[in-house]
Amino acid sequence: MKNIIVGQSGGPTAVINSSVVGVYEEAKKLGIEKVYGMVHGIEGFLNDNIIDLDSYLNDKDNIELLKRTPSAFLGSCRYKLPKIEGNEEVYEKIFKILDKHKIDALFYIGGNDSMDTIKMLSDYAKEHNKSQKFMGIPKTIDNDLPITDHCPGYGSAAKYIATSLKEIIRDNASFGVVKPTICIVEIMGRHAGWLTAAASLAKDDTCEGVDAIYLPEVDFDLDKFVSKVKDLASKKSSVVIAVSEGIKTSDGKFVCELNSSDRKLDAFGHKQLSGCASTLANIIANKTGLKTRAIEFSTLQRAATHLASLTDIKEAIMVGKRAVKEAVKGNTGMMVTIKRKNGKYSSTTDIYDIHNIANIEKKIPIEWIDIKNNQLKKEYIEYAKPLINGELLPIFKDGLPVHLIRK
Amino acid sequence: MKNIIVGQSGGPTAVINSSVVGVYEEAKKLGIEKVYGMVHGIEGFLNDNIIDLDSYLNDKDNIELLKRTPSAFLGSCRYKLPKIEGNEEVYEKIFKILDKHKIDALFYIGGNDSMDTIKMLSDYAKEHNKSQKFMGIPKTIDNDLPITDHCPGYGSAAKYIATSLKEIIRDNASFGVVKPTICIVEIMGRHAGWLTAAASLAKDDTCEGVDAIYLPEVDFDLDKFVSKVKDLASKKSSVVIAVSEGIKTSDGKFVCELNSSDRKLDAFGHKQLSGCASTLANIIANKTGLKTRAIEFSTLQRAATHLASLTDIKEAIMVGKRAVKEAVKGNTGMMVTIKRKNGKYSSTTDIYDIHNIANIEKKIPIEWIDIKNNQLKKEYIEYAKPLINGELLPIFKDGLPVHLIRK
Repeated sequence: MKNIIVGQSGGPTAVINSSVVGVYEEAKKLGIEKVYGMVHGIEGFLNDNIIDLDSYLNDKDNIELLKRTPSAFLGSCRYKLPKIEGNEEVYEKIFKILDKHKIDALFYIGGNDSMDTIKMLSDYAKEHNKSQKFMGIPKTIDNDLPITDHCPGYGSAAKYIATSLKEIIRDNASFGVVKPTICIVEIMGRHAGWLTAAASLAKDDTCEGVDAIYLPEVDFDLDKFVSKVKDLASKKSSVVIAVSEGIKTSDGKFVCELNSSDRKLDAFGHKQLSGCASTLANIIANKTGLKTRAIEFSTLQRAATHLASLTDIKEAIMVGKRAVKEAVKGNTGMMVTIKRKNGKYSSTTDIYDIHNIANIEKKIPIEWIDIKNNQLKKEYIEYAKPLINGELLPIFKDGLPVHLIRK
Repeated sequence: MKNIIVGQSGGPTAVINSSVVGVYEEAKKLGIEKVYGMVHGIEGFLNDNIIDLDSYLNDKDNIELLKRTPSAFLGSCRYKLPKIEGNEEVYEKIFKILDKHKIDALFYIGGNDSMDTIKMLSDYAKEHNKSQKFMGIPKTIDNDLPITDHCPGYGSAAKYIATSLKEIIRDNASFGVVKPTICIVEIMGRHAGWLTAAASLAKDDTCEGVDAIYLPEVDFDLDKFVSKVKDLASKKSSVVIAVSEGIKTSDGKFVCELNSSDRKLDAFGHKQLSGCASTLANIIANKTGLKTRAIEFSTLQRAATHLASLTDIKEAIMVGKRAVKEAVKGNTGMMVTIKRKNGKYSSTTDIYDIHNIANIEKKIPIEWIDIKNNQLKKEYIEYAKPLINGELLPIFKDGLPVHLIRK
C-alpha cells in the first residue's frame, strides 16, 4: 500500500482528531509513504483539497497538541454522497482523484451519515473492480452507532456534561433560602438519549445529582412534567432537570415545537432543534410562578476538549490504528467497532460490515431507564462510568489551552 | 478578638470559596478562636443559621478541595438590608446574634449589593457604639467594583470565556465549505462589559479570535450590526460574535427586549435579562437567510471552577487574609482592594472606605474600546491577560472533579 487518505465528517467531537493521530501513527509504522488528509471531508476531496499530514504530524509535539485540539483539525462537512445510479460522474471523479495521488485506502471518521459514504464508495469500488479500500472509523458524541459497544467522542461529551452539571447543581443550590430556581438543562441528541443520560453521572459522593432526566426514548408528557416540577419544588431548595433536545410528546411532536412550528431542515433532512429547555422553562414559569432558568450546552458538549476523557482519547487512537491495519490486510467496506471485555473495564477493537451499520441508530435499552423516577438504572451507570475516566489535560500557554491549527 | 464570622453573598464565582480559605487561615494564624460561617449569607444569619468552619477546614485536604469547589460553599443570598431608619429591629437582631456567639468581626464576600450590607452594618455600629468590625471582601465576575484594580472572580470567568470561545471558534470553523454559520455568544454583564470584553482574549497564536464584540458601554445599533454580519459572512467561512446580555439601543431598550417586554425584576430591582443572543440570531436569520446559532454561557461562566485561574485563586485568598488582618487592627467599614504593581504583573492589597464603593459600578474605560472595529484595544488586553494566568486543576475521582460540600 503506497498512500492513504483520512477525512473527518459530521459534527466534531473532542477526540475526532485523536483518530487522525491513530491513522497517521499506524500508517507510518506500517511503512505507508504519504498520509493525506481531506480538507473538509469528501466535499473538499471532490475539489482535490488535500494536505500531506507529514507537514504537521512529523513532530511529536504537534501530535500531543492534536490530541488536545477540539473540532475537526482537517475540517468537516455534511455532504451526503448521491446514490450511485444516475450519479456515476461523482464517483468517477472521486476515483480519479484517488488514482492521481496513488491513494490505496480511504478512511472516514464519522457517525451514521458518514458511514453511508464508506458504504457507497466500497459498493462502487466492488461493482467497478477498483482496488482501493474504504474503512469507517466511528465517531459521534451521540453514541448511536450500532454493533460497537460505544462510540469515540461519547465519553468526552459525557464527561463534559457530568462535570458541568456538578458545577451547575452547586451554583443552583447556592440560593437555598428563597424558593427554588428550576434549572432546566438541554442536552444534544435527536433520537437517542445517550448524551442526556450522562446527566445521571453527575451524582457522586460530592453531588446530589440532577432531579430528573427526560430522554427521547420515553414519550414526554407535559402534565406529568409540570406535576413533577411542582412536587420537587415543594420539597427541595434547588431543582436541576436534564432534558434531551429530542424529547417528543406521544403524538410525535417535539417539545421545542410546542412554541413554534417553523423549524428548518439540515442538509440530511433532520429537523433543526433548539430551545426545548427554554420552552419548558417558560411553560413552568407561567404555570407555577416559579423562577426558572434554561441552560443549553450547545456545541460546547462536543468541543470541550479541555475536559476530554483519557479513556476516550486512547480508544479514538486505537480505532484509527485498527482501521489502517485492516485496510493493509485487504479489508474494505467495514467499520471498526469497540468491544468491551468482561470484568474491570478494558476494551479492544473488532471490524464489522458497514452495510449493517450505516443509517441504523442505536437507542438506550428501555430496561436501563427508570421511567417512574425519571432516572437511569445502574445498568446505564455501570456502562457509562468507565468511559469518562482519566484526563489528558491541556497544554496551557498564558492561561489558555494551546491547539494545533491548519495554516 | 475572640470569634469572627464570614458570609458569602450574591452570584457565586469560581473563587468565592478561596476567600473563605483566606479568612479562615489568617484568623487561625492570628489566634482567633472560632471562625463561623453564615449559611446563606446575612439572610441565614438572621435565622441564626451558622456553622463552625473548624468542622470542615481543620483539614488540609478539605482546604485544597474548597479552593476547587464551585459556587458558594456556605450558601449565598440576595437579601438587601433595609435602610436603618424605621428598621432598627433588623439591626438589633443582627447584633444580638453577634453578641450571643461573641463575634467581634463580620466579613462579607460579595459585589456591589453586598458591600452595601457592610456599609449599613458599620454605620449602625458606629451610631450605636457597637464594637464589632465589618469588612468587605470583593467578589464579582462582573468586575464592576470601583477603586480595586479588578475583582476576584473576574479572572476565572474570563479564563472560562476565552477557553470556551477558543473551542467554539474551532467548532464553528469546522464546516468551512458551506456558507458560514453565524454563531452569537451571549455573555453575562448587565451594565459593564468586562466579562464580554474577555472574549477578546480568545485571540492568540493558535486562534483567530472572535469577529466582533458588543459591549453595554457602547449604544447598540441593529442596522449596523446586520451590516457587519453580512460583511463578515461575505468574507469568512466562520463567524463568531460575542454580545453582552446588557447591550442596549440608543433609546435605552435592551436588545433582548426587542422580542418581548414582559421581563421580571429580581430582588434588587434589576431587570432579568436573557435571550439577547437568540433574539439577534433570529433577527439575522430572518434578515439575511444565514444559518445562525445562539450560545449562552449562562451560569457556567461563574461556576466553572474546573477552569479557574490560579492568579485569581491566589488573590481571592489574599483579599480574605487582608480583611482579617485589618479587622484585628481595628479597622471597620472598609473593603479590601487589589492594587496592581508596575512592570511584570504582580498585585498587592489595600483597604478603602466602603462608603465610596457600595452601589457604584465601574465600567470599561471607553478609550479601551475599538468602537469602529467592535474589538478591544491593547490597553484592555494588557489589563486582562495576567488575570487568567495559571491553573489549579481539579482533583479528579472516577473521571469527575471532587468538591467539598456542606453536610
